Amino acid sequence: MRKSILSIALFSVAISTYAQDSLMFRRIHDNIMLHGTCYEDLRVLSKNIGHRLSGSPQAEQAIVWAQKAMEAAGADKVWLQPVDVPHWVRGKEYLKLKFAGSKDYKNVTMLSLGNAVGTDGKVLEAPIIIANNFEEFEKMPAKDVKGKIVFFNYRFRQDLPHTFEGYGDAGTYRWRGPSVASAKGAAGVIIRSVSTGLDDFPHTGAMRYADTVKPIPAIAIGNTSADLLEQELRKGAVQAQIMSECKMLGAVRSFNVIGEITGSVYPDKYIVVGGHLDSWDVGDGAHDDGAGCVQSIEVLRTFKALNIKPRYTIRAVMFMNEENGLKGGLAYNDSALARKEEHILAIESDAGGFSPRGFGLAMEESKRRQIRSYRKLFLPYGVYDFEREEGGADISPMQRRGVPCAGLRPDPQRYFDLHHTANDVFEQINHRELKLGAVALTQLVYITSTYGLK
Amino acid sequence: MRKSILSIALFSVAISTYAQDSLMFRRIHDNIMLHGTCYEDLRVLSKNIGHRLSGSPQAEQAIVWAQKAMEAAGADKVWLQPVDVPHWVRGKEYLKLKFAGSKDYKNVTMLSLGNAVGTDGKVLEAPIIIANNFEEFEKMPAKDVKGKIVFFNYRFRQDLPHTFEGYGDAGTYRWRGPSVASAKGAAGVIIRSVSTGLDDFPHTGAMRYADTVKPIPAIAIGNTSADLLEQELRKGAVQAQIMSECKMLGAVRSFNVIGEITGSVYPDKYIVVGGHLDSWDVGDGAHDDGAGCVQSIEVLRTFKALNIKPRYTIRAVMFMNEENGLKGGLAYNDSALARKEEHILAIESDAGGFSPRGFGLAMEESKRRQIRSYRKLFLPYGVYDFEREEGGADISPMQRRGVPCAGLRPDPQRYFDLHHTANDVFEQINHRELKLGAVALTQLVYITSTYGLK
Repeated sequence: MRKSILSIALFSVAISTYAQDSLMFRRIHDNIMLHGTCYEDLRVLSKNIGHRLSGSPQAEQAIVWAQKAMEAAGADKVWLQPVDVPHWVRGKEYLKLKFAGSKDYKNVTMLSLGNAVGTDGKVLEAPIIIANNFEEFEKMPAKDVKGKIVFFNYRFRQDLPHTFEGYGDAGTYRWRGPSVASAKGAAGVIIRSVSTGLDDFPHTGAMRYADTVKPIPAIAIGNTSADLLEQELRKGAVQAQIMSECKMLGAVRSFNVIGEITGSVYPDKYIVVGGHLDSWDVGDGAHDDGAGCVQSIEVLRTFKALNIKPRYTIRAVMFMNEENGLKGGLAYNDSALARKEEHILAIESDAGGFSPRGFGLAMEESKRRQIRSYRKLFLPYGVYDFEREEGGADISPMQRRGVPCAGLRPDPQRYFDLHHTANDVFEQINHRELKLGAVALTQLVYITSTYGLK
Repeated sequence: MRKSILSIALFSVAISTYAQDSLMFRRIHDNIMLHGTCYEDLRVLSKNIGHRLSGSPQAEQAIVWAQKAMEAAGADKVWLQPVDVPHWVRGKEYLKLKFAGSKDYKNVTMLSLGNAVGTDGKVLEAPIIIANNFEEFEKMPAKDVKGKIVFFNYRFRQDLPHTFEGYGDAGTYRWRGPSVASAKGAAGVIIRSVSTGLDDFPHTGAMRYADTVKPIPAIAIGNTSADLLEQELRKGAVQAQIMSECKMLGAVRSFNVIGEITGSVYPDKYIVVGGHLDSWDVGDGAHDDGAGCVQSIEVLRTFKALNIKPRYTIRAVMFMNEENGLKGGLAYNDSALARKEEHILAIESDAGGFSPRGFGLAMEESKRRQIRSYRKLFLPYGVYDFEREEGGADISPMQRRGVPCAGLRPDPQRYFDLHHTANDVFEQINHRELKLGAVALTQLVYITSTYGLK
C-alpha cells in the first residue's frame, strides 16, 4: 500500500515535471520566434562585416562585434581568450584553359584551396591529366604525371541521404589530393569542388601538405566547369595556366570570444554552446558559421529574457580559426584543462542555419540515453533524431578527453551547395529556420542545465 | 514445438521481407537522386511555361506539357479528364496611399485577391480604417465603416511551429475578410498578406464573397508595406486609391491530366499520387504546386526505371483548378464514383518542394497503424512524422467519402514566405530537397502497392 502511494506520488511528480518542462520548451520557442535577435544579428555580421578568415581585419571586427552582441544579450561576463592563428591570404588568382583545337585561353571561375601555396604571381603553364579517383591515379605511371596539372574529378556522392557523409567521402580529395599528386611529381592540382551544387560556384576549404612532399598550387573549380573540363579532356589535350598569389603568412594574435551566465548552484561547472567566428574568405560566412554564433548568443539572450537562472554556468563560445587550424578549439580546451574547469556538456552548431532535425551525441551511452529521454519534449519542434554520434570540430579537443559533446543537426540537404563559396551569404538564410535552430539549442541547454548530465 | 518452428519461420520471413523492402527503398532513393528528372521537369514547367491560373493560355500549355512528361516517364496510359473551371483574370491594378501631412499619393506593391471583383478600371478613393482582427472590427460602429476601405492587419502567427496552422489561422482574413467588411458597408478591403515573410511580397490566394453581401474590391499588401501602413495610421488619416481590372469570366473547358501504370494483380484498384497543375498568376508556381506535379511524374518514371510491377494500378494525377475552385478534384472524384473505381489510397504533394519530414494520414486507425509500421524503412531518408491526420485539397472530395488519403509533409518553414507570390519561382527550389520528396512519395506508393492497405 505504501509502495503504491509512493508510486502514484512519483508518477505525479514525473507528470508535473514533464508538463513544466514542456511549458518551458514552449516559452523558449515562442520567445525566440517572436523576439529573437539572431536573424538581425546575423544580418549585421554578414552584411556589415562579411567574410572573416582568421587573421584578417574582418576577423578582428567580428571579435569586437561578438563581444558587444554578447553584452547586449545580457551575459554576466564577456571576455576574450587569446589564440595565435595562422594567417593565410589569397591575393589575385586565375585559371585559364585552352581546349584542343582552340588557340585561345578561356577564363574559368576558380578558388585556391585554403592554406595552399600559390605560383608567386607567376604563370604555371602545363597540360592537364584527369583522374576520377585516387585508384585511377595510383595506376598512372609517374612519368605521365611529372610536371602536369592533375585534375581530380571525384564527384560528391548525391546518393548518400546524409550529405555530411558525402562531404567526408569527397573531402579527402581536397585535403589529401595535393599531397598525393605532388608525391608523384605533379606541378599543380585542380579538384572538382566538394559540392552538391548544380552550378559553377567553386568551393574552397582547408588542405594540408604532407611533410614529405613539395607544396604545389591547388585549386577548386565548380561542378559546371568541372563537367566542361571533363568533356573537353575526352576530346583531346587541355592546357592550363594557373596564376595565384596565395600564401601563408606568420601566425597572428587573435581571440575566442566567450560570454557566460553564472550558474546558481554549480558556478564552476560548465555547459558550452558555440560556433566558430572565422569563415572562409568568400561570401558572408552566413551558414558557416555565422549561424552557429548568433544562435549561441540567442541562447544567452533567451535565458535572460525568460529569467531562467541556470544551475550550471552557461558559456557561449565563439571559436576562432575552425576553418584552417582549429587553434581556437585547442586554446579553449587547454585553458579549461589548466583551470580545471569541469565541463558537463559542450554543444556546437556548425552545420548551417537550416531547420533543426536533431542532435548528434558524442558521449557515453548512459548520458546519451538521458538526452534521448527528452525526445518527446523536442518533437513538437521537428527535432527527432538523436541517433548520430557526432559533436563538432571546435569541441573535438574536449571530446577527445571525454567531455560529453553534442552537435546540432539541421536539415543537411542545402549545406554543401553553399559551403565555402561566394554563395554562402545572408540571403541564403531563412529567418524561421535559423531561429528554430536557436530554439533547439536553448532547449537542450535548458534541460541539461536543469537536470545535469549523469 | 511445431508452433515455435512456425514462429521462427515467420520471423525469418519478416526479417527477409524487411531487408527486401529496405533494399528497394534504397534503390528508389538512389535512382531518383542520381537519375531523377523531376528537377529538370520543374525547370521546364516553371521557366518555359511559368504561372498557369485555371483558364489561362499557360494552363493549356501545362496540360500539353504534363501529358508529354507522363508519356516520357513511361506511363502505360495517359489521358485528359475534362473539367470546367472558373476563369478569373487580373488585368492592370494599383494601390496608392496618401499619408497624413503629405500631398502626394505613393505607389504600394499589391495584388488583388483571387476571385475578387475589381473597380472596373475606375479609381476607388476612400479613407482607410484599421482593424487588427475580426473582434476589433465587430466593435466598430457601422457608420465608421461605411464607404471606407478596411485594412485587416492580422499577423501570421510566427509562434506556431507548424506554419500550416498559422496559415489556417490567418487565412480566414483572406477568405472571409472581404465579406465581413462588406456586410458592414465597407467600400473595399486591404489585408496584410497571409505570409511569414519579412519582405514586401504581397500574397494573393482565393477569397469568396458570402451570398448575402455586395462584392467589394479586395487586395493584399506585403508585410513591409503593412508595417508602414500600420505606422502611418497611428500618426493620422491615410487615404487610398485602388484601381483594378480583375474579374471573373465565364467557365471554360480544361482538363486533369492522368497517367497510369496498370496493376499486375488488381488492375481495377487504384493508388493515386498527385499534385495540382494550376497555380496563381504570379511567380512560376514552382513550389505551389509544380513540385507536386513533377514529383508525381517521378513516381511513374522510377517504377519503370526499376522495373517494379505494381500489384495495384498506380495513377499520377495532375489536378486542375485547386487554387480557385477545386473543380479538378471534384471531377476526378465524380468520375471515380461513376466508374466504380476502388481507390485504396490517394496521396497528394501540395505543401512545397522542401525536404520531406513525414506524411499526414487521413484514414481509419488500422490503416494508419499499418503505414506507421513502415516508419523504420523511411527513417534513413529523414521521414519520421506520421502523426498528423491530413490529406490534401484535391483529394479531399475522395477523403470525404472515406477513401484513405495521405499528404506529403515537407519541412514547412519556408513555404509561407513564398506561397502565392511573385517569389514562388524555380530558383527557390533545391534539387536535393525536391528529389527527396519524390523519393518519399515513390517509397510510400511502392510499399502500399506491394502490401495493399487493409
